[in-house]
This record gives sequence, structure tokens and C-alpha cells, in this order.
Amino acid sequence: MKSSEIETRWWGWGDVDKTYPVEERPNYIPFLQEKLGIKVDRVREPDPKLEDLQIREPRIPKTLVNKLAKVVGKDNVATDKKTRVYHALGKSHRDVVRARRGEIPNPPDAVVFPGSEEEVVKLLAIAEKESLAVTPFCGGSSVVGGVEPMDGEGLVGNISVDLRRMDRVLRVDAESRTARCEAGIWGPELEEELARRGLYMGHAPESFLFSGLGGWIASRGAGRQSTGYGKIEEMLESVRMVTPRGVIETRNVPASATGPDLNRVICGSEGTLGIITEATMKVRPLPEVYDYRGLLFKTFEGGVQAVRQMLQGGSWPETIRISDAEESSFAMVVRKPSSNPTKEKGLQTALKALDALGYSFDRGAFAILGVEGEKSEAEGRMRRIQAICRKNGAIPLGKSAGMEWYEGRYNHPYLRDIMMGWGVLTDTLETSTTWDNIMPLYHAVKDAIRKALADYDSKSIVTCHLSHSYVTGSSLYFIFLGRLAEGREIEQWVHLKEMAGEAILANGGTITHHHGVGYEHAPWFEREYGAQGMEALKGLKSALDPAGIMNPGKLGL
Amino acid sequence: MKSSEIETRWWGWGDVDKTYPVEERPNYIPFLQEKLGIKVDRVREPDPKLEDLQIREPRIPKTLVNKLAKVVGKDNVATDKKTRVYHALGKSHRDVVRARRGEIPNPPDAVVFPGSEEEVVKLLAIAEKESLAVTPFCGGSSVVGGVEPMDGEGLVGNISVDLRRMDRVLRVDAESRTARCEAGIWGPELEEELARRGLYMGHAPESFLFSGLGGWIASRGAGRQSTGYGKIEEMLESVRMVTPRGVIETRNVPASATGPDLNRVICGSEGTLGIITEATMKVRPLPEVYDYRGLLFKTFEGGVQAVRQMLQGGSWPETIRISDAEESSFAMVVRKPSSNPTKEKGLQTALKALDALGYSFDRGAFAILGVEGEKSEAEGRMRRIQAICRKNGAIPLGKSAGMEWYEGRYNHPYLRDIMMGWGVLTDTLETSTTWDNIMPLYHAVKDAIRKALADYDSKSIVTCHLSHSYVTGSSLYFIFLGRLAEGREIEQWVHLKEMAGEAILANGGTITHHHGVGYEHAPWFEREYGAQGMEALKGLKSALDPAGIMNPGKLGL
Repeated sequence: MKSSEIETRWWGWGDVDKTYPVEERPNYIPFLQEKLGIKVDRVREPDPKLEDLQIREPRIPKTLVNKLAKVVGKDNVATDKKTRVYHALGKSHRDVVRARRGEIPNPPDAVVFPGSEEEVVKLLAIAEKESLAVTPFCGGSSVVGGVEPMDGEGLVGNISVDLRRMDRVLRVDAESRTARCEAGIWGPELEEELARRGLYMGHAPESFLFSGLGGWIASRGAGRQSTGYGKIEEMLESVRMVTPRGVIETRNVPASATGPDLNRVICGSEGTLGIITEATMKVRPLPEVYDYRGLLFKTFEGGVQAVRQMLQGGSWPETIRISDAEESSFAMVVRKPSSNPTKEKGLQTALKALDALGYSFDRGAFAILGVEGEKSEAEGRMRRIQAICRKNGAIPLGKSAGMEWYEGRYNHPYLRDIMMGWGVLTDTLETSTTWDNIMPLYHAVKDAIRKALADYDSKSIVTCHLSHSYVTGSSLYFIFLGRLAEGREIEQWVHLKEMAGEAILANGGTITHHHGVGYEHAPWFEREYGAQGMEALKGLKSALDPAGIMNPGKLGL
Repeated sequence: MKSSEIETRWWGWGDVDKTYPVEERPNYIPFLQEKLGIKVDRVREPDPKLEDLQIREPRIPKTLVNKLAKVVGKDNVATDKKTRVYHALGKSHRDVVRARRGEIPNPPDAVVFPGSEEEVVKLLAIAEKESLAVTPFCGGSSVVGGVEPMDGEGLVGNISVDLRRMDRVLRVDAESRTARCEAGIWGPELEEELARRGLYMGHAPESFLFSGLGGWIASRGAGRQSTGYGKIEEMLESVRMVTPRGVIETRNVPASATGPDLNRVICGSEGTLGIITEATMKVRPLPEVYDYRGLLFKTFEGGVQAVRQMLQGGSWPETIRISDAEESSFAMVVRKPSSNPTKEKGLQTALKALDALGYSFDRGAFAILGVEGEKSEAEGRMRRIQAICRKNGAIPLGKSAGMEWYEGRYNHPYLRDIMMGWGVLTDTLETSTTWDNIMPLYHAVKDAIRKALADYDSKSIVTCHLSHSYVTGSSLYFIFLGRLAEGREIEQWVHLKEMAGEAILANGGTITHHHGVGYEHAPWFEREYGAQGMEALKGLKSALDPAGIMNPGKLGL
């Protein structure tokens, strides 16, 4: 079964048949109870029921639905409650709170599943003529409101255009290491198709299992291995986008000086200019090894310096994650204990011995470094990287610590939804800055999040890791937990996002390194982009989408 | 003396006190006489005289000149003939032909030299109010007409805004490896300032000595070492551009997901959206070694394969240049002979020995590979690269062959101007494509250029080298020589550019990899960009420059 055919939760993350194995981690609930001053009375909430949901009836007439069906076939237009609810929200904290409450303010009036670019062209023509807002939908994993259909000025309804049927790999050019794909292909199928030819793209965001190519490009995402392979914009060689005025296609060449780079105009456009239908992506040979290792730095600063030295010295891993002390100790406390008591005791002894040497999860920085590639090259690189780490105060913890993280890498979004049932607010936010500013920005954002949680009488756990690194700087990724303000969950979260957003802009960060803008980040985006930047964007928008039908309300448009 | 203070030729390339030492290469003229069927009666033409030039009087009133002077100071506005002529043309073949003929169709009505961004803002306000076209000017080395002031619709005059006074390095952040500079800084001063701090940018186009940062960014240029350091757009971290509607500033962060990337909108905008005033660039440690070496491949295809394998295998040099047989044999014939007859005889013996082994300049491919960086890393890399070359049929020719090329790397533009006096048309054009398409595009463009020259009854020398390479493909750079069609020099050249442009577009190339668009490439640019791409660009333009004052006539705008 294709990943896009798996039944997923409309009220939260992922496969309805999967969950986070929190029961294997007995310390989780006691730890959070103590740290956050909460009382957890059950591990899992019952799932909300679709029957209980009340959503607005489709606002568009049957005749218009028939028009859409004429384009895509009647099996590929849906106006049923389930399909509309699935396409009504993304996967942000706000979305999950609302879904659980049964608040679905913006269900699409219809969902269409085009099978070809030609059909997309026709759909946009109908939408423009009939004044319908169009929200492109790939995997629907946006955490910034990017896929929530919103009404635009002068528009009478909205449709969600789900690309999952457009999922073919169109051409693989192994000599040039590129692959042309339809934009609706999801992560697992894209990599499977490439793997069958000995190739690999290597873009694996946390949403990988339930997201796809068009969404990655539209939101300028980054995968786990972006330090090695680059963000999605660096993997993009050429692209096609259907706008209401016609198709834009960029040239399939490795580099060009032909005016402003339209690839980079389309990357990050978040569906506000058109629908991405195809892209040619850079690919590489399927790695022989995926070598993920754990290390422990004496300090977070030491880890940061090590990463800077790697990047600036020319030897770096594909994946980097340096957790600060708060994150490191959290991970150690809530880890899955070994089923073998002797082993568990051995671990405790080892931790004490490490502590005596100055290496501690409570004060230090747990790190994951992942090298992928051809065996001997990867080995040499890992050696050079480990040497840099040692020089900066790290001790290796070996492959099992790395592989444990690697194997659990797609599970955390499930955990967030479970925690909500415990009365815990947990979410993430991210930014990036230059190396000289990493530590000031780190402290400023952590402080802001702590204060924001305290403003709602919540204790807090605010953790951060450095990941997605560059020669000139790095991303910082924050995970925070607090007590959910019952009945005021969204207000509390909006307050926190505001405090964090202000701290980011005031301290030289970008409002988003890879989550995107959607409507959640729009106020800070507009300030970061500047008045003239926004004028430029509006100029683009009015040229390509004069009727304003494309994903209204996103990117401040 | 600053490079921007050197007196340069208004009728051709470079420093008025420098030239190409063609006298040291006695084979040059006989070879071209034979190959092109021409008769050269003197080595050097006399220089044209400024006094003989007739140019249009400034069309703007003295009161307006005074207004400009109020902004920049009266010493920084010029309406004299010499300054206006210097800013009337770039350095294309068309430009040199016209300058020599005394045809200066578009001299600016005034040239202003702002000293700060604030002054640039005021200048654009005056220009908009008074309906003046504005052409930004950095070094003026455009070969695509990018700096030629042209009249725009509804405008009554034009000014050239020369940024050379804005040449400060504003901030160097060695920790993050970035340097913020004013846009009017020229190549030599930029690198000198950085070198004083142990740093290096490494963008060295052939125009390096007479071009600068703002121009590089505006035209999306590439330097000699772009295979290692990337094109200018990859070196750009953040930028400020003054548009007629206000200033755009991008965030100084290593990566972001905040909408379409404005850095990449500004790169390649060629002055049509505004004037770039500052940029933060990625820098690196000053190399310990600059190791340039010559090699000889048995075939051009072997060299191409070697470069592809380097890039795809993860070890590549900063500089790559693989000449085809026509270029290799040309270089060998016209080389500077040794002053020592024994050495010269030794070379001939060596060439024969090489030939017997299958390595020949007449049938093979002379290559330059340049590695820059920290000594031991550079040595290791050069070893790996040479091994790949050997595997693909190359024999090393050593460092002296490399250094000879390195030392002469900025001289060739002088030679072009001299050849014009011999009745020789010589120029260059360039493109890029994916690896699978390199050889077909190579043949198609060479054929088109040969045919175009034959159409004007000219024999031809058409050479090509592969340079500026990427994991997915490479640039191809063509140099061609033919007999100038006397009296029809421009017509002949336009015909050739048309034939080559058609061949490039029909065979999967881009109309320019790094020369830019200007007005020369505009017709093919518009086709490559597509109707919707052009709409997008016009949308940007009308948002930022509603009166259309910014560099009219460029990029098809």
C-alpha cells in the first residue's frame, strides 16, 4: 500500500494504527508530573469521533461540483464530511486542539484529486471563473496553517486540491543524477522508486512518512540530513508550477544567469502563486552505510563549536543534532529502560563513571551525528568528525545510542498528541542565525518561551538542539513543554508563539528556518521580509494570480 | 591607487597602460592569417581619440544637474564628455565595434557617484520625480549591454549611477565567515581588505580587475573558482537594494524558509528593480596554496567524464577548464616560445613522445585544474583528482603549464581588442546543461557558430572548454574567431549570436550561465523564462519600480 493510501488521523498525527510506545517508558509521566506540576489520570484519551463533528455544509452548488468532476472524474471529487475534515486542518498544535474540540472553522467546500497537470490547469480556470479559493494539498503536514483552506476577498467558496494521485517518477537521469517527479509523490514512495534504481534523494523531514515533494518545495523545508544534502531549495534543479495565468517552467540546467532565479521564487511560495506539478530533483547513489552515533559533550557550547569547526573545516556529517543540557537530561530520564536489569545497572554505573570524568547528561550535551554514503568515504569522514568532537570535549557513546535515535526518528509527532491528553502543551519552533549569534539567540528564545509559559502559570521544560548547520551558521530547534491552560489552550499557545517570535526577530534570527510561514508566522514574516519585500511579493502575486484565488491568507497575502 | 581609480579605455578593455603582449607570440598572426584567410598589415591599431567623438549633448537642464549635485556633492556629478563616454557602453564586441567607430548612441545625460545608500535613495527619488532612467554602474564590464543607459517609456533622460565611491568593507565576522561590504567595491580591493584579515572571498571572473560586488550580484556572475566556491548567488548571505519604492533588506541568516528567497530575486535583477548598495558575503580563510596544474587528456570526452566523476565522487578542484582539441591545439600553436632554444627543442621532443603515446594537443584536451586551500587538504585533494584524470586518459603536464595559465588569466580581454585591428572577429559565449546533454549541446553550438561565420564568408576557429562544473552538469564556454565582415561587423555578430542562441535553446542549454542577459540575450531569455516567468518579473518590476526608471531595456523589461 502506498503511504498516501494509509488511513491517517484527522485529529492528530499519522497512521490511525500507530502510536508512540509511551508505555515502554515508565518514567515519562512521573517526570512530567513532577516537572510541570500536573496530574495525569490516564495514558491515552479516547479518539474523537467523526460522527460527533459538526461542520459547515459545502457552500458550492452541486452543478459546480459536477464541473469539477468533469475535469478529474467523479471519483476524484469529494464533498463528504470525512474527506473535507481531513483537508480542513494541518498538524499544528492549534490544529490538534481545534480538531479535538470539534472546531473546524474552514473545511473546504470540495476536495479534488487531479491526475495530471492538465487537470490542474483546468481546475484553476474553473476556480478563477467561479471565484473559489484554491488550497494546494500534498501530505497536509503543515504546522503553520499552510493547508487550511481560507476564504479570500471576493471569493464565494474554497477547494482543496490534493495532489496525491500525481505521484509518478517521470524520468531518472542517472548520469546527471537528477530525477523528475510529479509533485504529489510522498516521501516513502519517492525514495522507494529511487532506491530501485540505486539512487536516493535524502530529504527526510520529521513528516517524511506523510508528506511529499510539492509540499516540501512549497514550504522550503529541510530534512534530517540537510547539513549534508542541503535544504529542499538546494536539491531543486527545475520545477513546473501551474498559476491561474499559465504554467511556469524553469530550465533543467545546473546553473544559470538568466535573471532572478524562478526556482527560488517558487520555493517557499506556499501555494500562493500556483500549484507545483513537477520537479527535477538532485539525487545521489543510495548510501552503503547509514552510520548514526551518539556522543556526549561536556557542554552545549562545546558541541556548537565542534559543529562550526566541522562545517568550516570541510568535513561534516549529513545529520547533526546537539542537544542542550535540558534536552539531554530529559532524554536520559524518559528513555526506554533495558529489559535486562544487569544491563540497566551497567548503564547506571557507566553514567556515574562518565559523570566523574565531567561528562553528564544533566549538564552536558547529548549529540547525534549521522554520516551516510559510500563505506570507506563515510568511515574516514566519521573519524575526522569524531576527532573534532573529542577536541571540543566530547566522548563517544557509540552506534547503539545513534541507532536508537535513528529508529525512533519519525515517532515524536505521535507523542505530542498523546501528551495533550495528559494536559501537557508540547510543541516545537525553530530559527537560524550566524555562528557569532548562536548563543545569544539560544538564550533569548529559551527565556522568552519560559516566560510565556509562566504567564499562564505553567512551569516549563524548554529544550533546544542545534541542527541543520552551515558554514556561516546554524538552525536552532526548540522543544517546549508546559501545562496546558485548560479552555485557553490556543490563547496560551498564541501567546507563546508571539513571545518567541518577538525574541527571534529582536535577536537576529529568522522566524522560520524550515517550518514555513503559513498564517501562523505571517506577522513576523511580514516584518522580516520588510515593507518592500512584501510589495515585491504582492507584485508577483498580482501578476500570476490576479483574482487572488491561490491559498489566500498565507504569507500575509 | 585603487583599481577603480586606474584610467581605463573607453574604446575597449582595461588599463590604458596595459595591453596583451602579443609580440611575445610570433605564431599568432601567421596562424590566424592561414586559418582565417586574412591579411594582417599591422600589429596594433592607433587608439581612437576622444576629441574625434561626437556625442549627444546632455538632455537634462542644468537645474536638474544641480539637484543631483545637491545630493552627492558637485564633484560627484559629471556631465563632461569623457565621463559620459566611459559610462555609455559596456565591453561587448558590439560595444568595442561601436566605440571604435565613434557610435555612442546612448550616453548618459549625467553620471553621478553617490557616497552612501542615503544618497542613492535620494537620487532615485529625484529620478522618479523627473522621469529619468537610472542605470546602475559598478565596474562597467558587462558583455551583454547591461550598463548601457537606455531610454524608457515616458522618460526624458537618463543617468548612470556609478557606485565606485561606496567601496567600504563594513563588517567582517570571522567567526561566521561573512563580510559585509558596500556594493561599489571592486575585486582587487575587496580581496585585499579581506586578505589583511586572513580571509578570502574567491570570486574571480575574467573581469575581476575592473568589476565589483554590486555588478557581480546584479548579473549573477561566476568566477574562475566557481566549481569550488559557487557562483555569486551561492556566496551571498544577505543584501540591501534600494528600489524607487524603498529599501529591501534580507535577513543575515544562513538559511530560512520565509517565503520566496529575496536574495535570489535580487541576484540577476541587473539593475531593473533597484540598486544594490550592500551585501554580506560568505568568505573563507586565505588559501595557503594556489595549486594550478596542466594535464592533457587523450580526448575531450575523457576530460568531461573525469570532471563528472570528480563532482559526483566528492573531490573536485576550485577551478576546472577542459579545452577541446581545437582550443588545445590553438593554445599550443600560439604559445610563447621559450627564449632558450634547447628548452624549445626539448618541448618539441616531448610533444612527439606524448603523441606516440596517444596524447596530442591536436586531438586531445588540454586541461587546467586548480586547487586552492589549506596545504595538506589541497595536496590530498589534488592527488585524488589527478587519479581520476589518469583513469580517464590524462597525463599530467605539471605545475608550470598550470601557472602559465594562472598568471595570464586576466589578459585575454586585451587581446580581443587588438585582434579587431587585425580584421578578426573574436568573442565568447557560454551556456550550461546537465551531464547527459553536454556532448550534444557542445556539438550543436559549435556547428551553429561555424555556420554563422560561414554565412558571412568567413572561415572559423571555434573552440570550447568545459568549466564551472556541478554535480548535475556543467557550463560550456565557447571562444570563436572569424574574419570581421568589414562595415557589417555588428550585423555579422548579431547573426552569430542569433544562430548560437537558437542552438542553445533548441538543445537544452540556458542562454547564459554567467554573462547575464542585458539586452543582448533578452530575446532568448524571454523564451527561456517563458511567458508566465516574464509576467512574474513584470509583476515584481511594477511593484518596486512603477515608473519604470530602473535600467530600462534590460531583461526584456
